[in-house]
Amino acid sequence: MTKYIYAFDEGQKSMKDLLGGKGANLAEMKRLGLPVPDGFTLTTEACIAYLKHDLKLPETLMDQLETQLEAFSQRTGKSFSSNEQLLLVSVRSGAKISMPGMMDTILNLGLNDENVEKLAKKTNDFRFAYDCYRRLLQMFGQVVYNIPMTSFDTYFEEYKQQHSYQNDADIPAEGLQEICNHFKEVYLNEVYKPFPQKPLEQLTEAIEAVFKSWDNDRARVYRQLNEIPHDIGTAVNIQEMVFGNSGDRSGTGVAFTRNPVTGDAKLFGEYLLNAQGEDVVAGIRTPKDIETLKDQMPHVHQQFLEVSQRLETHYKDMQDIEFTIENEQLYILQTRSGKRTAHAAIQIAVDLVEEGILTQSEAVMNVEVKSIDQLLHPNFDTQALQQASLISKVGLPASPGAASGKIVFSAEEAKIQNEQGERVILMRPETSPEDIEGMIASEAIVTTHGGMTSHAAVVARGMGKCCVTGCSDLEINVVDKVVKYDTGTLKEGDMISVDGAKGDIYFGEVATMKAERSHAFEQFMKWSKDIARLDVRMNAETPQDIQSGYQFGATGIGLVRTEHMFFGPERLVEMRRFILSDTREKRIEALNQIRQYQTEDFEEILRLSGSRPTIIRLLDPPLHEFLPKSEEDKAAVAKQLNVSGRTLTQYIESLEEVNPMLGHRGCRLAITYPELYIMQTEAIIKSALYLKSQGIHCQPEIMIPLVSTVSEFTILKNQINERIETLFEAHGESLHYLIGTMIETPRACLIAGDLAQECDFFSFGTNDLTQLTFGFSRDDAGKFIGAYAEQGILDTDPFQTLDQHGVGQLVKTATEQAKAINPTIKIGVCGELGGDHKSIQYFNTLDIDYVSCSPFRVSGALLSTAQSEVKGGRLRV
Amino acid sequence: MTKYIYAFDEGQKSMKDLLGGKGANLAEMKRLGLPVPDGFTLTTEACIAYLKHDLKLPETLMDQLETQLEAFSQRTGKSFSSNEQLLLVSVRSGAKISMPGMMDTILNLGLNDENVEKLAKKTNDFRFAYDCYRRLLQMFGQVVYNIPMTSFDTYFEEYKQQHSYQNDADIPAEGLQEICNHFKEVYLNEVYKPFPQKPLEQLTEAIEAVFKSWDNDRARVYRQLNEIPHDIGTAVNIQEMVFGNSGDRSGTGVAFTRNPVTGDAKLFGEYLLNAQGEDVVAGIRTPKDIETLKDQMPHVHQQFLEVSQRLETHYKDMQDIEFTIENEQLYILQTRSGKRTAHAAIQIAVDLVEEGILTQSEAVMNVEVKSIDQLLHPNFDTQALQQASLISKVGLPASPGAASGKIVFSAEEAKIQNEQGERVILMRPETSPEDIEGMIASEAIVTTHGGMTSHAAVVARGMGKCCVTGCSDLEINVVDKVVKYDTGTLKEGDMISVDGAKGDIYFGEVATMKAERSHAFEQFMKWSKDIARLDVRMNAETPQDIQSGYQFGATGIGLVRTEHMFFGPERLVEMRRFILSDTREKRIEALNQIRQYQTEDFEEILRLSGSRPTIIRLLDPPLHEFLPKSEEDKAAVAKQLNVSGRTLTQYIESLEEVNPMLGHRGCRLAITYPELYIMQTEAIIKSALYLKSQGIHCQPEIMIPLVSTVSEFTILKNQINERIETLFEAHGESLHYLIGTMIETPRACLIAGDLAQECDFFSFGTNDLTQLTFGFSRDDAGKFIGAYAEQGILDTDPFQTLDQHGVGQLVKTATEQAKAINPTIKIGVCGELGGDHKSIQYFNTLDIDYVSCSPFRVSGALLSTAQSEVKGGRLRV
Repeated sequence: MTKYIYAFDEGQKSMKDLLGGKGANLAEMKRLGLPVPDGFTLTTEACIAYLKHDLKLPETLMDQLETQLEAFSQRTGKSFSSNEQLLLVSVRSGAKISMPGMMDTILNLGLNDENVEKLAKKTNDFRFAYDCYRRLLQMFGQVVYNIPMTSFDTYFEEYKQQHSYQNDADIPAEGLQEICNHFKEVYLNEVYKPFPQKPLEQLTEAIEAVFKSWDNDRARVYRQLNEIPHDIGTAVNIQEMVFGNSGDRSGTGVAFTRNPVTGDAKLFGEYLLNAQGEDVVAGIRTPKDIETLKDQMPHVHQQFLEVSQRLETHYKDMQDIEFTIENEQLYILQTRSGKRTAHAAIQIAVDLVEEGILTQSEAVMNVEVKSIDQLLHPNFDTQALQQASLISKVGLPASPGAASGKIVFSAEEAKIQNEQGERVILMRPETSPEDIEGMIASEAIVTTHGGMTSHAAVVARGMGKCCVTGCSDLEINVVDKVVKYDTGTLKEGDMISVDGAKGDIYFGEVATMKAERSHAFEQFMKWSKDIARLDVRMNAETPQDIQSGYQFGATGIGLVRTEHMFFGPERLVEMRRFILSDTREKRIEALNQIRQYQTEDFEEILRLSGSRPTIIRLLDPPLHEFLPKSEEDKAAVAKQLNVSGRTLTQYIESLEEVNPMLGHRGCRLAITYPELYIMQTEAIIKSALYLKSQGIHCQPEIMIPLVSTVSEFTILKNQINERIETLFEAHGESLHYLIGTMIETPRACLIAGDLAQECDFFSFGTNDLTQLTFGFSRDDAGKFIGAYAEQGILDTDPFQTLDQHGVGQLVKTATEQAKAINPTIKIGVCGELGGDHKSIQYFNTLDIDYVSCSPFRVSGALLSTAQSEVKGGRLRV
Repeated sequence: MTKYIYAFDEGQKSMKDLLGGKGANLAEMKRLGLPVPDGFTLTTEACIAYLKHDLKLPETLMDQLETQLEAFSQRTGKSFSSNEQLLLVSVRSGAKISMPGMMDTILNLGLNDENVEKLAKKTNDFRFAYDCYRRLLQMFGQVVYNIPMTSFDTYFEEYKQQHSYQNDADIPAEGLQEICNHFKEVYLNEVYKPFPQKPLEQLTEAIEAVFKSWDNDRARVYRQLNEIPHDIGTAVNIQEMVFGNSGDRSGTGVAFTRNPVTGDAKLFGEYLLNAQGEDVVAGIRTPKDIETLKDQMPHVHQQFLEVSQRLETHYKDMQDIEFTIENEQLYILQTRSGKRTAHAAIQIAVDLVEEGILTQSEAVMNVEVKSIDQLLHPNFDTQALQQASLISKVGLPASPGAASGKIVFSAEEAKIQNEQGERVILMRPETSPEDIEGMIASEAIVTTHGGMTSHAAVVARGMGKCCVTGCSDLEINVVDKVVKYDTGTLKEGDMISVDGAKGDIYFGEVATMKAERSHAFEQFMKWSKDIARLDVRMNAETPQDIQSGYQFGATGIGLVRTEHMFFGPERLVEMRRFILSDTREKRIEALNQIRQYQTEDFEEILRLSGSRPTIIRLLDPPLHEFLPKSEEDKAAVAKQLNVSGRTLTQYIESLEEVNPMLGHRGCRLAITYPELYIMQTEAIIKSALYLKSQGIHCQPEIMIPLVSTVSEFTILKNQINERIETLFEAHGESLHYLIGTMIETPRACLIAGDLAQECDFFSFGTNDLTQLTFGFSRDDAGKFIGAYAEQGILDTDPFQTLDQHGVGQLVKTATEQAKAINPTIKIGVCGELGGDHKSIQYFNTLDIDYVSCSPFRVSGALLSTAQSEVKGGRLRV
């Protein structure tokens, strides 16, 4: 027989899976001898069994419940039917992970028309007894029978008005009795059945209601959002009532063992006298600072202080504790790790280490990775935000940060306005590489198309720039320079504010608070870096980004994208000349011009990297991205390059592709135009040789993208090596360099062993690899990805978190094969997933050497790999 | 010490790898005691060693060569220096696989200024001796020193003119002597060195020339085209000369043991008296029918007949035999399997079985799969073709066959003209599903874009219709209705002829010969089918195709594409109404209309299949394929559906995709619009239920395309099953059906085990799987695939022959995982590779149940799997 119910003294904190967080902690506190009202927990297994078997309670459950109640009675001397020792209980849900959206709490269960009188007599307080009954009727009706709250509240308020009572407390016992009678009628009117008078019936129905609430829409959505599995169920805690509302020597409160906003090591909390738990939450009366309890009931305050410290030391973390005082008797009703701000999280973790409560490894486990992200970006001022008004529906939180500025609709306009000292926000249907300079000039970027990994999103994250994408409810008209939202229109120059961490857009300007890195933060990151096994590099190419990345702890550059080195007005002219040339000689001539610029670019990048490794990806995008799109631009380009409009159009048409993602790009460009990569190689090596003459020994690592056969790689590698040898000879000097490949097609993974024999390094390009493995185009998936999320087809967005079963298998096998054949090969991940916490946990289990991500994600990634290391047990905690 | 030289009596036919085909067969004939001039063979290993070590002969080779020549002298009594018993030899290359493009033959080697006199004296024929010397000088100069043929020929012809000699034979001995002297001067003028007088030097240089010729451009290209490895090298055969040109009782000839055109079981060949081998080939004199040898030299004829029969029986195949008669003495110089027409191949194979020479399994191995293709399609009359003139450069041989017709530029025009009784050829930049009816109405299809697996190619092969794609040198202007070729223009109505097997297009009409299936063919295919392990199904949907496929031996349908069931004017209106509907109700209404039509379609298909399994793929292409493209069509559609032009344009824009191949298609359509697949399911099941009431128990197998997660499949499967249950209940009748999936994304392969638990069958869609594994779009790869082939990056086109290392690994692993978890799952391949010989060889090694291909490839595929079975050794040969 499965044991479905555990008395508190049968459990402990390690049993969270079975007893839920709340139940396990209540048991643990009981075990510690703390003053916890007695009770028992129905397991998550009972919940799962109930939901699986068409909402039928497991056969033996009712027997077990009765046995438990009997044992309970024997321990406490109380029962639902006793006159003197009346048992009333609370029923609370409690999943493994705390989860709003489910049924929460029913208090005072056990009361009925008979027991309310007993309670009144025993406490000698009719008003108190009927107030308890009134609350039960209300809560039970709402949560068990889904009777709308208004059905009770409306009458309650009317009753107060009729009798001119100001506060609830003004209603006398008789009034509450009358209200109770009316509430019982509400049951008959709303659900055609009476309030159940039998306590056991109340209890059973309450239990079933908790179980059912696991599967309600709100709970499902919450789990979806927070990546909580749907099949772990919730436990139910049944606990003897204690009454904070039984007079002025009673009360109830909540306290944190440390300040959850600042992290200060001082008890932080509030309480209400003569109140039950819900009163504190409801906010009808203003609670008092926990400090004042010292004056009211010094010994209770002292006792609570001791309990708090004991719990914090025991749980090795800041605790959020619920307590009730019944006639100066302290009861602890719940303890759990307290929610805190990112700032507080770091402070507390560092303090706990310094207080000897935590080891460094444990401290690293105590801070969520997303707190780091939060810390590094500015946020809107919380108070200012409450005044701000949202522009209809919102988009995707593509890159965190908060910014205000005037709307512009083109990259050019952004540059112009920015040069005139304006703060601007670039709004586009989508962005393309030509928009880079405009993006740099903007405070934030907003797009209506594209998702979390669209061009705008990726580039913005790289820049640490605030960005919201996929605002499909906005309609951007770049010709008329207006944005339509559901109830109106914004035009160029209108001020808006963008919250990239939430995907929100506000009218007007909203004040921000700047990000600041504290001493504790530096300390904390140092510990993380010490523990981390994986190196964390950055994906970056601008000096500003590279400097940020190194400040955030990057150990090198994992991806320098070189496509932007072909934009910029003068370069673009030459690039277009290259594309429109019909002979190799003319092409080389155009590239020679571009090489001059790129040599300077690489010199700057390599100088900043110094002796740290720097992976440079050779040109990747298809050539048509460099050609003009609009008729106006075409005419200008034709004139500039002295070709006929017809010729230009023919070139443009000949370069058009049905599926550009699968087309003529990456190393395929260099197979057809070898001079492209040769030019880039020259620029890289020349700048590195120059730096060497300046005493800077940099480590360029040349990366060939989109390889799917060994020959592609070896042909290009040989060409590159040959040119480098020539350069070394000409300069009478050489340097250390590597040549490797990006692994971003499934085939490259499948032939990884063969490739590894030829490559110095691999870098998994998880964006393309995911696209190809699923057959999803990031640019197009928006049309169905919503339906996929709704129907639970994808647990998480595979472009944000590694798809372990599919893409992960390819990465795993490829890594194993490559290292088996070439143990010295360096293997990294440079896609967006390289900065994702969950993905890093997986990469950390493989024989991978580094991950690489946007500069602003470097610190978070360091923490992720450190946490993975601690969890993996390679480090003693 | 590696043995690099084998005397003929040391070898045998099984040693082809080492001795090459010619050498192994000469040795074998020697072993059989046939009259073969003595000699020895330098191994392919010697060739490989020579090429690998910078064109240096292996150290011990010269010693071995001298030892062999000595042994040779002892056996024959002849030597290069003997006065009486002068040794002259032929030097011939001979790779494992016969290969034009390499150096072929040098005769009379050993002659020099001295030996020519000895030969003259011995034969008492100065003219003969100097003719031999003249030939040696010419051949040696050409093949060993690369002296242009004209350098010899021009002088030879001038000499004849100067002296007014009509024929070579008119030149007297003195003239030939003069010519020889001049030829020796040619050496000095052209290569600044004399003709080597030492026989051993001649021999060594000739051997090196053969070895080197393995790596010349023509040979490399040939190997590329014929998929022969570059690293197997060639052998060299040194053989004592016999002289067919030593008088009228001598001669030389070539004969096939059976007629290579018709397959008739009768010796077929020709010979020339007083001639050397090259004279027969050169065609200067007209050879005589081998029959006439009976009169000329009855005993030689009789001896040759016996030798022929012996060789055929010994080699178990029709032989192509070279022979020489020297003074009525017969010598056999070569035997090999004879090339033959497809028709003859079948006839000979069947006859050899009936004669007891071959088993059925052996017969199956004796016919090339491509012969089958050739047999099933009409071809141009060979003679008519010689008169025809080619339109500039040609395209890709997308679908075999030969057809003539008048040019049309649109599917509509094709239909109109066809209805008026015209034969037309549809010329388009590319085709789309809307063109289907026009393609059916055309004799052939020609496109300028697209490759072997473009829409036009795939559909045409399915129809068994002649098609040439990728004619990138033609420029089709569908607006002006003209085609430009390099030197002119063709217009609508001009007659052209298209050879789909070669990719050629001719001006005007060229006569064809019809394909006919002989009794022998039927017999042969029956044996193949008996031996085949894999079932062969067809990819087909039109009644005509289905009937063809079953005639060709298909065991069921592996792929019914249903997209064309949404085209056709009435349906397209409803489909567009469906797309433009904003409510589910309206969408269902539109689909209900389409369902009526599709029920009829499925009834026809299932009726033709009878009890044979029929896999129906639910709708696959993205919705935008159904919307109008031109402004004119858009206006018409807007009017027809009563929506504003603006609304229509918005819909069209909202459906546009950046990478349609990776977009909203396949099962993703049904996840967002479940009613689509439900409609198709209803049409399938209703028609099947109706047929059951008619006594036809059909087996519909419903296939869900483009799955990449288990949930996609299970969600849709459950919806489909539920609807089918409802239909069964409504009809009070049920039937057997299956639901499976197409495996066409890498991820589907990676999760095959999980998918197999849910699926009744898998069908590998190798086209998409190859695109995704490589990250190649078939539509776009044209831009770089040429460079890839040139640089040897791709040995074969992975869309035509399975990429075993990449895609093949995915197929293998997926098949193993699926069968391990669900041993009853049926697994097939329905991409284009399902009909490819080499790919089938691989599929046959896996636990795959069937392949499916275009109807016209079914017979070939059956033969492929039969051959694979025989080769795999599962059958005793």
